[in-house]
Amino acid sequence: MTSILVLNGPNLNMLGIREPGVYGSMSLPAIEALVQRKADELGIRVSFFQSNHEGALIDRIHEAYGTEDGIVINPGAFTHYSYALRDAFGSVGLPVVEVHISNIHKREAFRHVSVIAPAALGQIAGFGVQSYVLGLTALVQHLNDKEKG
Amino acid sequence: MTSILVLNGPNLNMLGIREPGVYGSMSLPAIEALVQRKADELGIRVSFFQSNHEGALIDRIHEAYGTEDGIVINPGAFTHYSYALRDAFGSVGLPVVEVHISNIHKREAFRHVSVIAPAALGQIAGFGVQSYVLGLTALVQHLNDKEKG
Amino acid sequence: MTSILVLNGPNLNMLGIREPGVYGSMSLPAIEALVQRKADELGIRVSFFQSNHEGALIDRIHEAYGTEDGIVINPGAFTHYSYALRDAFGSVGLPVVEVHISNIHKREAFRHVSVIAPAALGQIAGFGVQSYVLGLTALVQHLNDKEKG
Amino acid sequence: MTSILVLNGPNLNMLGIREPGVYGSMSLPAIEALVQRKADELGIRVSFFQSNHEGALIDRIHEAYGTEDGIVINPGAFTHYSYALRDAFGSVGLPVVEVHISNIHKREAFRHVSVIAPAALGQIAGFGVQSYVLGLTALVQHLNDKEKG
Amino acid sequence: MTSILVLNGPNLNMLGIREPGVYGSMSLPAIEALVQRKADELGIRVSFFQSNHEGALIDRIHEAYGTEDGIVINPGAFTHYSYALRDAFGSVGLPVVEVHISNIHKREAFRHVSVIAPAALGQIAGFGVQSYVLGLTALVQHLNDKEKG
Amino acid sequence: MTSILVLNGPNLNMLGIREPGVYGSMSLPAIEALVQRKADELGIRVSFFQSNHEGALIDRIHEAYGTEDGIVINPGAFTHYSYALRDAFGSVGLPVVEVHISNIHKREAFRHVSVIAPAALGQIAGFGVQSYVLGLTALVQHLNDKEKG
Amino acid sequence: MTSILVLNGPNLNMLGIREPGVYGSMSLPAIEALVQRKADELGIRVSFFQSNHEGALIDRIHEAYGTEDGIVINPGAFTHYSYALRDAFGSVGLPVVEVHISNIHKREAFRHVSVIAPAALGQIAGFGVQSYVLGLTALVQHLNDKEKG
Amino acid sequence: MTSILVLNGPNLNMLGIREPGVYGSMSLPAIEALVQRKADELGIRVSFFQSNHEGALIDRIHEAYGTEDGIVINPGAFTHYSYALRDAFGSVGLPVVEVHISNIHKREAFRHVSVIAPAALGQIAGFGVQSYVLGLTALVQHLNDKEKG
Amino acid sequence: MTSILVLNGPNLNMLGIREPGVYGSMSLPAIEALVQRKADELGIRVSFFQSNHEGALIDRIHEAYGTEDGIVINPGAFTHYSYALRDAFGSVGLPVVEVHISNIHKREAFRHVSVIAPAALGQIAGFGVQSYVLGLTALVQHLNDKEKG
Amino acid sequence: MTSILVLNGPNLNMLGIREPGVYGSMSLPAIEALVQRKADELGIRVSFFQSNHEGALIDRIHEAYGTEDGIVINPGAFTHYSYALRDAFGSVGLPVVEVHISNIHKREAFRHVSVIAPAALGQIAGFGVQSYVLGLTALVQHLNDKEKG
Amino acid sequence: MTSILVLNGPNLNMLGIREPGVYGSMSLPAIEALVQRKADELGIRVSFFQSNHEGALIDRIHEAYGTEDGIVINPGAFTHYSYALRDAFGSVGLPVVEVHISNIHKREAFRHVSVIAPAALGQIAGFGVQSYVLGLTALVQHLNDKEKG
Amino acid sequence: MTSILVLNGPNLNMLGIREPGVYGSMSLPAIEALVQRKADELGIRVSFFQSNHEGALIDRIHEAYGTEDGIVINPGAFTHYSYALRDAFGSVGLPVVEVHISNIHKREAFRHVSVIAPAALGQIAGFGVQSYVLGLTALVQHLNDKEKG
Repeated sequence: MTSILVLNGPNLNMLGIREPGVYGSMSLPAIEALVQRKADELGIRVSFFQSNHEGALIDRIHEAYGTEDGIVINPGAFTHYSYALRDAFGSVGLPVVEVHISNIHKREAFRHVSVIAPAALGQIAGFGVQSYVLGLTALVQHLNDKEKG
Repeated sequence: MTSILVLNGPNLNMLGIREPGVYGSMSLPAIEALVQRKADELGIRVSFFQSNHEGALIDRIHEAYGTEDGIVINPGAFTHYSYALRDAFGSVGLPVVEVHISNIHKREAFRHVSVIAPAALGQIAGFGVQSYVLGLTALVQHLNDKEKG
Repeated sequence: MTSILVLNGPNLNMLGIREPGVYGSMSLPAIEALVQRKADELGIRVSFFQSNHEGALIDRIHEAYGTEDGIVINPGAFTHYSYALRDAFGSVGLPVVEVHISNIHKREAFRHVSVIAPAALGQIAGFGVQSYVLGLTALVQHLNDKEKG
Repeated sequence: MTSILVLNGPNLNMLGIREPGVYGSMSLPAIEALVQRKADELGIRVSFFQSNHEGALIDRIHEAYGTEDGIVINPGAFTHYSYALRDAFGSVGLPVVEVHISNIHKREAFRHVSVIAPAALGQIAGFGVQSYVLGLTALVQHLNDKEKG
Repeated sequence: MTSILVLNGPNLNMLGIREPGVYGSMSLPAIEALVQRKADELGIRVSFFQSNHEGALIDRIHEAYGTEDGIVINPGAFTHYSYALRDAFGSVGLPVVEVHISNIHKREAFRHVSVIAPAALGQIAGFGVQSYVLGLTALVQHLNDKEKG
Repeated sequence: MTSILVLNGPNLNMLGIREPGVYGSMSLPAIEALVQRKADELGIRVSFFQSNHEGALIDRIHEAYGTEDGIVINPGAFTHYSYALRDAFGSVGLPVVEVHISNIHKREAFRHVSVIAPAALGQIAGFGVQSYVLGLTALVQHLNDKEKG
Repeated sequence: MTSILVLNGPNLNMLGIREPGVYGSMSLPAIEALVQRKADELGIRVSFFQSNHEGALIDRIHEAYGTEDGIVINPGAFTHYSYALRDAFGSVGLPVVEVHISNIHKREAFRHVSVIAPAALGQIAGFGVQSYVLGLTALVQHLNDKEKG
Repeated sequence: MTSILVLNGPNLNMLGIREPGVYGSMSLPAIEALVQRKADELGIRVSFFQSNHEGALIDRIHEAYGTEDGIVINPGAFTHYSYALRDAFGSVGLPVVEVHISNIHKREAFRHVSVIAPAALGQIAGFGVQSYVLGLTALVQHLNDKEKG
Repeated sequence: MTSILVLNGPNLNMLGIREPGVYGSMSLPAIEALVQRKADELGIRVSFFQSNHEGALIDRIHEAYGTEDGIVINPGAFTHYSYALRDAFGSVGLPVVEVHISNIHKREAFRHVSVIAPAALGQIAGFGVQSYVLGLTALVQHLNDKEKG
Repeated sequence: MTSILVLNGPNLNMLGIREPGVYGSMSLPAIEALVQRKADELGIRVSFFQSNHEGALIDRIHEAYGTEDGIVINPGAFTHYSYALRDAFGSVGLPVVEVHISNIHKREAFRHVSVIAPAALGQIAGFGVQSYVLGLTALVQHLNDKEKG
Repeated sequence: MTSILVLNGPNLNMLGIREPGVYGSMSLPAIEALVQRKADELGIRVSFFQSNHEGALIDRIHEAYGTEDGIVINPGAFTHYSYALRDAFGSVGLPVVEVHISNIHKREAFRHVSVIAPAALGQIAGFGVQSYVLGLTALVQHLNDKEKG
Repeated sequence: MTSILVLNGPNLNMLGIREPGVYGSMSLPAIEALVQRKADELGIRVSFFQSNHEGALIDRIHEAYGTEDGIVINPGAFTHYSYALRDAFGSVGLPVVEVHISNIHKREAFRHVSVIAPAALGQIAGFGVQSYVLGLTALVQHLNDKEKG
């Protein structure tokens, strides 16, 4: 059974609590429930992990080596400077889908550049909580195609 | 009935004919058929237009004003310099989803910046021909949410 | 009789239809009528041309060679990247006045630079539809001065 | 009765005395007489002030607060670095038209950027002494429109 | 009773132990005692937290949501790259005062830019350990003004 | 008796008159009265000077040499380009505290850099008119510490 | 029989008509006749196409796929920004020789960079109309070498 | 007896497990054994620590203050942005040797700059696992020289 | 009789009073006396003017038009941003020699660029007060050569 | 009889010996023989010189003054930094053709800029050893045209 | 028997004579003796060459082709601009170790970038004269590993 | 007796032969004779050396160590990139005066920066051949002052 790790980076535990105007009113557990429903629909297993600690995210990515088939990540602000996170993806060699709730390409200049993207399969940004669902769908489709191809 | 315009920019008419290593082996008509199937599944209407002429794309976007509910576009190389295309989206005020077959964020430096993105709802890049399907799904979901909300 | 070509670049055909907050509520035909009235007052002939196609604008500029005495142009977004348009002005050698409805110098950074300006006599920006009237006045004055001087 | 302040920045008192090739052969008093004639024609009052002192220009702008309806300024070289002048316009809140005798956009690179422009209604450059007349016309038109609108 | 969180970032636990020439000879506990005395004088409650872990600081900021009235932070080297810390302030929406022992604006170039500052009420830098006392005073004054105003 | 010069740069004489949203509703005389009260409380002498003329500020700084013990300055827009002001501080060798009413670090990009800061003891920005009071407090504390130390 | 497409970009239809000082006095038909004579001498077939429309050039390049053996192009101003043209060469995979009448490396800074060059076999610039003849010679030589090698 | 701390930053725990082409096939424990053998040969004591957490590395560096004579570190991706790590070295004042398995100067541009280097005695890069052995040798030699000198 | 104006910009009235380590211990009157002696030796007339006001320097330069044969100036910090001063030299058309006491090319980066230099005959920097004497000598030599040649 | 100097810069003596994949398998003497055959065909005289010493190349260029009619040069790596070589061409005033074996415009970024180009008639790059033959042809054609014209 | 060439670039012949504070008090012959002793210990042959002439160093590198097994070089100031030297290493294809006496990464900004590094196996900087010994050790180890592997 | 070395860099041996419009009509031997006359007048010894070889200039500078009291150099194009020359001055520790015939600060952008200047006492540019005479005068004055002081 296909197994996917869904990671959330710093401050995403605060989703829905504050700034609903920017990030929507849904809390992280509610988003995870939404992703879980999509996973059930797709017949795959998902696990969730959120941390404000870059090191904890890297540790979790390393654990995924040999146990998970792919990763969906919303790296939060780490998107823009965590080369360590990027190298973590390089070191486990799993397909990674980078998702963002907001369209980072139309916010402050520093948010336009993702240092994670070169280590990812693809990027989905701007569709609110649906970015996660689209990301999971895209990753599962990619894994199925690879299996067949 | 929801109606979506699917636009393809310069050189995308050559998809599948050459460079399958980079862009996959599917031709543009085959991609459009794939998108049509997804549209049928979603119960919406889609129209297709491809041009190597920036002006023809802008003309087509203007025609969409008052007749379409949203646009999915793969702007090809126009992504990186066509401010006129960006302003066309501003002038019709429709929700736009920008899609890319390859992950533009890990190719040549000039491909990392999209001048279209600030006029778009969101961006999907790197999932091959599935980027179109994901883009259509995301746009329809957005329109449904707006209708409800 | 002095003859002036009044050119409008991409998306200006949408004037008055959308975004009246930024560009005013007057449509392009209404602006052209306003310019025509000024031309009548000044006793000169004006012709009008708008296109979303860079190539069509260049073709029209070339036709002006030997038949028109000067050009007033609102290049729209081509202002910021169309070196081909700039060279078109160089190749016909007519006096050109560049006009902008909004004050481009206080909008997004990419709008602060005009690649057209080095090929123009002068630039007028920020006075709404009056920018066209001022531009025509300035160009006619320049032609009269040159004739006398 | 509408009252407009016409300001000239550093070295513009030397107009007509030297470098007629670049700036024309008309002296500043002659330009002011030309502007006065236009003002009479438009039925408005104009006052004139020139200084080589940034501080004196700022003082004069402050005095305009509550006594003038708008300002036409040729900031000379202050165009390119006097953020204090820019803030002076912000602090009095009057509509400002920035004029330049030469087309600053085709001279040395440092002259392409105006730090004044973001505080101005619009900019007119390149029409010799007519830039002042056009600027006055544009400002009066703007004030009339505002009054009506 | 007003309650303020005083945060210290990486390496500030080493204050007073080494490099007294740059950062003064006072240890962090001594600084905290100084701040406590000021808090007593102002009749407010203060809590202290120092960590070399970005994630631990973010966790602590999140805990402050709903329990503290404001934050005084010396972000240490995180000042210059921790966009995650900046977003943490955005996610809790508390007023934040950024303090620095040394005048960061006259040290190495990378220390001149604070990525935290756009999320802060204000910044105080260069007054040695007094920067903390001034920061606390400024924050309390701000909270009192807000309460009144 | 300790004597401090409080300087205000260009446009600060307009405080409270316009743009209260940005700079507050207090006039410069009212700010000076507030600072005077703090000075009385601290048992020191303060003198005040405001000018829109860079040269007048420099002249006043030179006069302070040998007669004042320190300077608090809000350099206004001179913050961002007046290297002459910076050198004036270097030439008199007095301790200088730079204050700003708004948090310059979150306004337009050009306001993020202070060319004055390398000649100052420290910088305080973002606390409204309290920035002056905090600046005076910080400077007096510094002078007391130096005297003792 | 080897078949070569000779393309000319925007404004090159105006060659010889204006600015003979910069581009020489030979018209485009005369240049094409010169290239035809060289083609006859080399025993190859040449076809010619000029357009001021980027899209028309791209369409023509696509048509060359499967029918031509190589392309000589003077991209005019498109040299400096038409990534779509560059990608068109990538999509047909033919050997391309980029030619320029003037030495673009000693003109305005924006003309020093060719975005086309990375998709070309080589570049020839600065030899007036002979650049075309040299370009054709180089391309035929390359095709002959490839055939042998 | 001389005592050296050997630190490894993020993702170096994955050495030998994946990407042997880039980083070699030796695991981190094997590298540490190699370094231990060199330490035995040199008659010194070494301790080892690896973490994916920046804060844990800083904590460990602080603990080295007063207990270790020097540090050999492979900072991994922290090399390129962890100013906190750099300041940690400044705060303990121990001699530091920065080592890299690969030659960072010929990889992606972001890897060419080390923000750690200004706090280090020297840098050794590109010699595979021997970089550690050379680094230890260099540090011990430096400590011996200092003792003598 | 040849007549030369010797100008000194901001803060140079403080020479010799403070910072003798950087600028030497000679006061401005003493430097002027030294220059006067050289002038007497060369048989020319010199006048002196110093101001901290950019506008006053410009006024004085304008007065030199028609009355002086050349200008020696130490522009102080105006060297690096006063485009108005530069234009003042352009507007009077006199030969100008720019002198600096210190070698500006080895101080802070902002001091490496002179915006005045393009309007000057030449530049002399780094020879202490002798820079003035050398500057005067160079200017007189230039005027003599021009007269002869 | 027309006489042309063919220069080769650093490392070109190693052609054909190593890296045939990049530079082809032909040695420098073989290239010179090829060029000699073309020269014989064109009825001109050629001399050859290669050096790894910038100074020796400059000396040789100076010797060409008055004895040669033009220069064909492959400056090797000097292309990108030898301003002295560029000035050498300026000092002898001969027409120069710059040739490169590879297409420098698609290699590392530093190879895209030629500091030699502004002193050259034109540039030919990317055609292997044929670049020399094309360069010689272009230069002779230019000399013939000049003679006639 | 393994044979290594040890190269020293410009000004290194002056080592020990001047600036012992920066570069140590050991002369170049003494350093070469030190390296010779290490070579004897390692059982390899070393030859030495120093030149202030870039061309002489390149000539010597070319001679090493086929006669030496590797190169240790301290390129001195050539490190920062000699692309010719870099290409020389490319043209002989020998393993190269770049050494520096001082830690170039903490000196002036221009010394942080090595244009040689991308052609080298690795870089060792900051260990005084030991950098040579470490470099020789690293190179020999590399050659031994390659032989075995 | 004071002894000064006068150095001339690349292409200066061609002075007077070509481009008299830029560099004057005096040959290098004539300039050296002029400098010799000044040296005789000052009662000092001068030696002259010119080379197009960077290495030869460095060798000559090294020879000056212990035999000359100072150096006057016109580095020609080496001014802008020869860090080796700069380091040569550092290694001999003699006072150096940098002279330029033309005002490098108003020529092409690359000529505005001198990498030599930070190693020089001062710079004199723009006074034609008199720059050498002024440079010698300045250097001798400096040596006399040092002797006295």
